[in-house]
Amino acid sequence: MQPRGIHHLGVAVDDLDSALSTYQRLFGARLEHRETVPDQGVEAASLRIGSDRVELLAALGDDTPVGKFLANRGPGMHHVAYEVDDVGAAIDELTAEGAELIDESPRRGLFGLEVAFVHPDAVHGVLAEIVSDG
Amino acid sequence: MQPRGIHHLGVAVDDLDSALSTYQRLFGARLEHRETVPDQGVEAASLRIGSDRVELLAALGDDTPVGKFLANRGPGMHHVAYEVDDVGAAIDELTAEGAELIDESPRRGLFGLEVAFVHPDAVHGVLAEIVSDG
Repeated sequence: MQPRGIHHLGVAVDDLDSALSTYQRLFGARLEHRETVPDQGVEAASLRIGSDRVELLAALGDDTPVGKFLANRGPGMHHVAYEVDDVGAAIDELTAEGAELIDESPRRGLFGLEVAFVHPDAVHGVLAEIVSDG
Repeated sequence: MQPRGIHHLGVAVDDLDSALSTYQRLFGARLEHRETVPDQGVEAASLRIGSDRVELLAALGDDTPVGKFLANRGPGMHHVAYEVDDVGAAIDELTAEGAELIDESPRRGLFGLEVAFVHPDAVHGVLAEIVSDG
């Protein structure tokens, strides 16, 4: 698999408004999208910082994936997303390499992106996401 | 401060050769630089993945910054580096915004980069690095 590069860095935060303000103030971040996705238990903000992108993730409750991450680890970097042309083809290539996937077929992620997550055990402790912008 | 974008994602690993092999195999990573820096207690590999960059960091001992990180958190994402034209000017701007810095003046980082680290308490739990490629 040959990603185009890093699509975004996903960061878990306790308070989305406060974190958004910090990124705007310190790093000149521009808000690209913001949405609440009850199905995924998350409120998310996509920020552009220069030519790159940071995705802030706040939990809608303790019993959500991001809520559990925050309870275990505290706020901080949550995942890194690599951009590919075709998520399905990337899944096939990763599977052929023996990488453990969380999503065995492409699914709808935040902001309308097509995504699949790779298990952190396959990437030395880093939760990786494969993303196509469609 | 307005970074150009993300210069690299820093990742702490237990075994540099094994991690390098994983990133080459799964993500088509190309090795850009590799160096051992005893002063900083680290062996590091800079990888290009598409148009972006991941820096793998292995500890030279338990009593090093990366060694302590690995003991506390296990392998995973360690820091994110934002690229700027002028690290000194960025330090001044961050200080004016009240951000706590680890390095109050630019210092020499890995691979000859000029760098300064921002305290994770200033960035909602994310260790941020400011980098100039000179």
